[in-house]
Amino acid sequence: MSDDLLHGGSLDRMRAAFPDASEPWLDLSTGINPWPYPVEPASADALHHLPTREAYTRCLAAMTKALGAPAESIRLSPGSELLIRLLPKIISPEKTVVLSPSYGDHQQVWNASSTIVIESADALTHADTADAIVLCNPNNPDGRVFSLDELEMARARLARRGGWLIVDEAYADLNPGFSLAPCGGAPGLIILRSFGKFFGLAGVRLGAVMAPMDILDAFDQLLGVWPVSGNALEIGAVAYSDMDWQADMRRRLSKRCNRLDEILSAHRLGPVQGTDLFRYVTCEDAHTLWRGLAQQGIYVRRFAWSNRHLRIGLPGSDSDEARLNAALSLSV
Amino acid sequence: MSDDLLHGGSLDRMRAAFPDASEPWLDLSTGINPWPYPVEPASADALHHLPTREAYTRCLAAMTKALGAPAESIRLSPGSELLIRLLPKIISPEKTVVLSPSYGDHQQVWNASSTIVIESADALTHADTADAIVLCNPNNPDGRVFSLDELEMARARLARRGGWLIVDEAYADLNPGFSLAPCGGAPGLIILRSFGKFFGLAGVRLGAVMAPMDILDAFDQLLGVWPVSGNALEIGAVAYSDMDWQADMRRRLSKRCNRLDEILSAHRLGPVQGTDLFRYVTCEDAHTLWRGLAQQGIYVRRFAWSNRHLRIGLPGSDSDEARLNAALSLSV
Repeated sequence: MSDDLLHGGSLDRMRAAFPDASEPWLDLSTGINPWPYPVEPASADALHHLPTREAYTRCLAAMTKALGAPAESIRLSPGSELLIRLLPKIISPEKTVVLSPSYGDHQQVWNASSTIVIESADALTHADTADAIVLCNPNNPDGRVFSLDELEMARARLARRGGWLIVDEAYADLNPGFSLAPCGGAPGLIILRSFGKFFGLAGVRLGAVMAPMDILDAFDQLLGVWPVSGNALEIGAVAYSDMDWQADMRRRLSKRCNRLDEILSAHRLGPVQGTDLFRYVTCEDAHTLWRGLAQQGIYVRRFAWSNRHLRIGLPGSDSDEARLNAALSLSV
Repeated sequence: MSDDLLHGGSLDRMRAAFPDASEPWLDLSTGINPWPYPVEPASADALHHLPTREAYTRCLAAMTKALGAPAESIRLSPGSELLIRLLPKIISPEKTVVLSPSYGDHQQVWNASSTIVIESADALTHADTADAIVLCNPNNPDGRVFSLDELEMARARLARRGGWLIVDEAYADLNPGFSLAPCGGAPGLIILRSFGKFFGLAGVRLGAVMAPMDILDAFDQLLGVWPVSGNALEIGAVAYSDMDWQADMRRRLSKRCNRLDEILSAHRLGPVQGTDLFRYVTCEDAHTLWRGLAQQGIYVRRFAWSNRHLRIGLPGSDSDEARLNAALSLSV
């Protein structure tokens, strides 16, 4: 099995790897909201012209307000992946502690830089010795949440020595109370945000970084003035302004997630952790279960580093839920 | 006048700077095709899911074929601006010769790196001493064309010493015969391409780089697997495959450009150079003419380094053409 298939979002490769699986595939590999924010077709302006500063500012203002972030502490990007990858070109920590397990790109990207990478399940305990600590909050894949107090304490310690706390908040839209966004711009703090997951619009490519001004200046130098498509700016401006949709969606996801947990528990996949967009389950032989689901056209996330865990995205309909339930009955 | 207004594509700022100008503004500042390729609304797939490898490959294949480029020598990006800005993070020439005058971003970006930058009107003559030579072909703003022979000779000399010829082909879709794309992947050659200008879809953000494999690997590391939006991939795949539209458009732009030249010559703005998407004119007092046009709601491009030149984009309709003609009658 190719390593490619360890990442989520490669449905085309799954299809090639399991040609006999039932179609259509049910893609539960990504933790992207199955109920996307409803969008209008792109305006002619958004398509034809270079994105204006006005369009950028409108999107930024909506996002800033939705996140409760200080103005002037944010920059937009075509997705948070690019930000993750550019960070080692902007800061050069000697020793970087990366939370483990966590979203694999962080570890991969820092490993490819000149920093010394230490993987740690207790990343924050290194605040007095590391030059940078990287984590996701809530964490992906296990949903672990770090309290604002412990994060703030670590940030202060790191900042005192010129170090950095890097918090990937890709799933923080689900629980705004978990977010450090109101502290955006604080010394030593770099926050990454993703638009596509909670809003279910991952193809749009929209992300953001919050950081002190010198870091934002360095991102400006790399990203330029037209990093984000005109359509993404339009969509972001509307979606972030729609606070009712966001509140309703949080409730809806939470309900559906409870139903998913019941199914998982009924199949003795537990304990179940995660966020309301994906569940992280413990099982006996994860790779065999993964393969069993794949053979039935259900694509969930497995991990190279563990045969005891799978990550399962939220089914977007009763029938998808029923299909997962049936497939688990055959596979577990 | 703010430096911002020296760049094209800032219509919102022009509007603020000239609040009494006639509306609607006629934006001739950018050299973007006024007759955009007609696009369908984004598919649900393109919006909701992470762009698949399949969608990326489809767009890349269409582009590769349209450009006559070798397969496997190209990577896509969200616009060519990002590529321009990432290059100094990928190669580290000691001495970089940048064509002058040319598209200002190249000079700005290399100046911000640790290289020694030499501006030269005869950039290619430095092939035996420079570590990198950067130019646009056709050149922006003056439309100057470098022959494939002289480029190939310079590339070979640079490559022999581990140096780089960087050719920004943002306007090469107008004249495919000018392009080095068939040599894509050759040692020492880095080609940048832009989708938005010829196809009139600058807001979509799609560009590409052709280079030897180690350079592409470095771009992969920075750009990741989802750099381009799902919608941009869909649009690029369709537009690059539509060879009839491209051939018709070249003829149409050429005709309209001849008409524009007649107008410019009638106002004794000459000699007129450029590409079929913008004309570069010589005049007595460019900044005063620029202001005169701006006061009439016509936005053209001026230059900090010369009061003798303006760049004027192609009007997209008879009425826009007539409006430019009338404004020039009042201003020249």
